[in-house]
Amino acid sequence: MNMKTEQKKMKGPMEGVRILDFTHVISGPFSTMLLADMGAEVIKIEKPGEGEFYRAEGTKNEAGVSIVYPNYNRNKKGITLNIKSSKAVELLKKMVAKADVFVENQRPGLLASIGLGYEDLKAINPKIIYASISGFGQDGPYARKPAFDMTIAAISGLMSVNGIEGTVPTKTGAAFSDFISGIYAALGIVAALRKRDKTGEGSYVDVGMFDSILSVLDDFIPKYKVTGKEPTRFGNRRAGFAPVNVFPVKNGEYVYIAGSFQKQWEALASLIGREELITDPRFKDNTGRKQHEALLESIVEEWSLTKTSQDAVIELEKAGIPCAPVKGIGDLFKDEHIQARNSIIECDYPGIGKYAMAANPIRISNYQQPVERAPMLGEHNESILNELLGYTADDIVLLKREGVI
Amino acid sequence: MNMKTEQKKMKGPMEGVRILDFTHVISGPFSTMLLADMGAEVIKIEKPGEGEFYRAEGTKNEAGVSIVYPNYNRNKKGITLNIKSSKAVELLKKMVAKADVFVENQRPGLLASIGLGYEDLKAINPKIIYASISGFGQDGPYARKPAFDMTIAAISGLMSVNGIEGTVPTKTGAAFSDFISGIYAALGIVAALRKRDKTGEGSYVDVGMFDSILSVLDDFIPKYKVTGKEPTRFGNRRAGFAPVNVFPVKNGEYVYIAGSFQKQWEALASLIGREELITDPRFKDNTGRKQHEALLESIVEEWSLTKTSQDAVIELEKAGIPCAPVKGIGDLFKDEHIQARNSIIECDYPGIGKYAMAANPIRISNYQQPVERAPMLGEHNESILNELLGYTADDIVLLKREGVI
Repeated sequence: MNMKTEQKKMKGPMEGVRILDFTHVISGPFSTMLLADMGAEVIKIEKPGEGEFYRAEGTKNEAGVSIVYPNYNRNKKGITLNIKSSKAVELLKKMVAKADVFVENQRPGLLASIGLGYEDLKAINPKIIYASISGFGQDGPYARKPAFDMTIAAISGLMSVNGIEGTVPTKTGAAFSDFISGIYAALGIVAALRKRDKTGEGSYVDVGMFDSILSVLDDFIPKYKVTGKEPTRFGNRRAGFAPVNVFPVKNGEYVYIAGSFQKQWEALASLIGREELITDPRFKDNTGRKQHEALLESIVEEWSLTKTSQDAVIELEKAGIPCAPVKGIGDLFKDEHIQARNSIIECDYPGIGKYAMAANPIRISNYQQPVERAPMLGEHNESILNELLGYTADDIVLLKREGVI
Repeated sequence: MNMKTEQKKMKGPMEGVRILDFTHVISGPFSTMLLADMGAEVIKIEKPGEGEFYRAEGTKNEAGVSIVYPNYNRNKKGITLNIKSSKAVELLKKMVAKADVFVENQRPGLLASIGLGYEDLKAINPKIIYASISGFGQDGPYARKPAFDMTIAAISGLMSVNGIEGTVPTKTGAAFSDFISGIYAALGIVAALRKRDKTGEGSYVDVGMFDSILSVLDDFIPKYKVTGKEPTRFGNRRAGFAPVNVFPVKNGEYVYIAGSFQKQWEALASLIGREELITDPRFKDNTGRKQHEALLESIVEEWSLTKTSQDAVIELEKAGIPCAPVKGIGDLFKDEHIQARNSIIECDYPGIGKYAMAANPIRISNYQQPVERAPMLGEHNESILNELLGYTADDIVLLKREGVI
């Protein structure tokens, strides 16, 4: 069966929602991408000539094509608008009248200063959902500070609890504040759409990367409030439990092993042929094992170094001990579970060829996410301006000549 | 003005949605908490006697009360049901007939085995949204494997890119796979509700922690596909740019400093009184600075160690250099921005007293999230069973005696 025809029949949950996407870099594009994956019509608006940040910056292939842009902008249509031109602002406002959602992640205050703030767009379309993603949210003393994933990680306390104990506070290996704020914004948008459908009222949705990270800091905030104790980072170990860590195996690989609970520890001691440790007073409970943690880890390591990653995991799983092989990114492409669930999706992208991305993790019955490549710069100028606003081919030539699009 | 009355007037976007919450630990409770924050009626179902995992396990205060449970279960109602009793299963099914959403994060297959799978509940209520959160999703070869945040971090490649270069793959300091899968599930649920409102059809929503982490791995998956190169971890440094790192300041604190771009580097060299480095051939561009990265960092450190965190940040910001103080969790309680935006919310909790949590990061106009404490075990047994199913006080006494609730 033709995949595309099949998909057409399956109604995405966001079908019929038109989103104007005036975002760049990660948080905003990722947010609208999630909604495009679920069937929304997302129209990405970029600067004529150069496009958004990630067309020009970030990792590129040998042909100079961004490897990042096609991921966060899949399933979208693309138009160009030079919002420094008042004609472009007017054109955008005409589009707002025909849209459900407007999303932006510019510096707070920037769009209001050129007549594209929430109040401006609400005057045109009272039902509009206007969502802003920013570092620190739209108000408060830090609102206008520049924000990057790493500054948010530093100031939110995340770095203070991330990394190996006794070493420097460490940022995370992925830009979680961007991604998490993007998912929250998508959730806020869909919630606001539901409210609009019920009450007829539009909403303004304000999501900050800072607030987003605070919300996922494990139990550190309540714990500090209750105990007054500053938490610290403890790497791959686990507070109160040992042995829990990554252990080296043959061939320079690692396996994560958690002998957290008494039963698991005893199973581990047996598996590695060291039953005598179970009754050793130094290791008889977690308090003792925590005190002698490095020694205990060196004993587990003696065993792990004799195993391949695969053998270690098979033996540990059989013994009921929580464990996992530490995989690299390349391993994901060979992973049987990823293959079975199509968790990595592919498309062709001009100038790159075969391109791969993680699938949308939300699986909804009777719906399969579309996989349309991200747009070329201004690819849908003609079709969108014609279908949405009735501009003719001649109008569009003029808009181009005037530098509006 | 009475805060509660004020809130009542403001219609939450999820108002009128009834959610049966059969979840435990983090991912599930966090997911439904986000929806409760937005006005959904969330009825948490727990085992009689002991309640869910986090009532008994995890960090507790001196009185033995869990510090974790009240966070992820705020704004919910609580009932008890012993689902090993067939009468409890029947009772739950009666509730399903009057609910919009059912959420669970049990081991895949468990609920279907006791007649509470999607097909069972759909037969009772065809419009039900049934959401399952699990480690690896509901199908595929790993579906039944036990999953914890750390095993997901290991097997997803996240650990391979997290941590300091040259050291072991490292887990993150917060359980991102739990939180991110929880936010995705909330998004999937609201999207499915929208579809139901438009088409009358219910949905099954399947979210895995593994897929969730794959989706936020920066650009590693596309980059590997295009370049074939395995990425690595690089701690606080930045691939291709230097100097970017955390630097020690006076009093054992740290400041993050990013001299990524030429202009920023030159501003930094001037600020630290080392203008001569700008023309030094070793440091003239990022390629050179990357080659002599450790030396360069030691030069920046000479300067940073003479400053307090506050002074360093003031001077760096003035010079236009991206920077941030590395804060601890305790600092958050004194942060003026957090105070201005009420990003930490408080309530009283029995046996704890004053309790603090991060606010919901989704700010929606004309709506303020409620802050009702999490329920005591079975606190709403009477009210829910009476209002929803018409059970009398006598019925409820009997259900208790029979061990159903």
